[in-house]
Amino acid sequence: MNRPAAVVLLSGGLDSATVLALARRDGFDAHALSVRYGQRHSAELAAAERVAAHLGAASHRVVDVDLRALGGSALTDDRIAVPVDGVVPGVIPVTYVPARNTIFLALALGHAEVLGADRIYFGANAVDYSGYPDCRPAFVAAFEALANLATRRGVEGDPIRVVAPIIDWSKGRIITEGLALGVDYALTVSCYQADAEGRACGACDSCRLRREGFDAAGVHDPTRYV
Amino acid sequence: MNRPAAVVLLSGGLDSATVLALARRDGFDAHALSVRYGQRHSAELAAAERVAAHLGAASHRVVDVDLRALGGSALTDDRIAVPVDGVVPGVIPVTYVPARNTIFLALALGHAEVLGADRIYFGANAVDYSGYPDCRPAFVAAFEALANLATRRGVEGDPIRVVAPIIDWSKGRIITEGLALGVDYALTVSCYQADAEGRACGACDSCRLRREGFDAAGVHDPTRYV
Repeated sequence: MNRPAAVVLLSGGLDSATVLALARRDGFDAHALSVRYGQRHSAELAAAERVAAHLGAASHRVVDVDLRALGGSALTDDRIAVPVDGVVPGVIPVTYVPARNTIFLALALGHAEVLGADRIYFGANAVDYSGYPDCRPAFVAAFEALANLATRRGVEGDPIRVVAPIIDWSKGRIITEGLALGVDYALTVSCYQADAEGRACGACDSCRLRREGFDAAGVHDPTRYV
Repeated sequence: MNRPAAVVLLSGGLDSATVLALARRDGFDAHALSVRYGQRHSAELAAAERVAAHLGAASHRVVDVDLRALGGSALTDDRIAVPVDGVVPGVIPVTYVPARNTIFLALALGHAEVLGADRIYFGANAVDYSGYPDCRPAFVAAFEALANLATRRGVEGDPIRVVAPIIDWSKGRIITEGLALGVDYALTVSCYQADAEGRACGACDSCRLRREGFDAAGVHDPTRYV
């Protein structure tokens, strides 16, 4: 008997690897989708490929979108420095990429429609990144509403669900639950400025939040640092 | 005094050229955004460039998104033929590109956020293409709601508007109003399978709808056919 299909947005980082494991646990054939969007840390994409294979994704596609043409973020504009001085509550950091999650979910929606997938799994997390507007539950709910107005299957009364299962989890909980599902976090890359071999800087906000997560989970941090 | 800014999605076709003229008439600095998405009819992008210059766009950017990686449409998959046998009411045609307008609007949203633009102009038309789910007013309204949950300016209480001014206009009305604003439709390309010089096939649905529009407007059809 065929399992239902889901599309999983997979960045190669810790959060989306966990979400891929959750999609598999939930009984879906998980079709991973990564986006090459001009990010500095392209080592993430190599990590995504390893993670997709490791966690038994049914497929893995990479879509190219040149967000550098739009600019406006430290992650896609070499003239803006990656901050290393901490997340400020209530302030949107310069690592925010304008409309990135809207764009990624739109691509996932197109992929889901072609595959006939029932769900989109999205690794947004509102706890560590409270400054990113497109990581909040209201955003996810609005995208699901849009998705069902935008597509054939929504029109035909067979709605797609957009889920963000770790949106309110702490980094420690994400790691604890992922380890229980067999996720090997040594394969993942979270650093905003990882080197070509995927080694982390240890200084950027993403590195610090990740390290704090392993501390909170009380487990060894398998990250390779430069 | 600075005029407010708007982002205009510009395909190079008849509809979006008219919308660019409407944005200018409405008093906006119009920043045109085109998408190279693997469409067969890349002559449209050359047309977009001509139209942007002709109508005085403040800027024109082209973003690359490889929707061929997702497949599923006659416009992006060479194995699916472009239909020439007419639009069937209530049936979504194979020229529908999954989630295309969601993806385009998401890119426009990112561009608008970087520019600080107040509006996104979107040339959807529900009359001629009633089979496309993402050309309906409810879809546009849902995207506007999403946009204001997704972005800094929405969070900060300065909402962006997403407008589709020709959504309920007939092709004849679009042409009539565009001509009154000085649009030169000879610069535009609508054909789904135009040749490299932008000459139209005259047979596809898009060509037929366009020709019927010039007939309805009672004006000469300036389209160059093969």
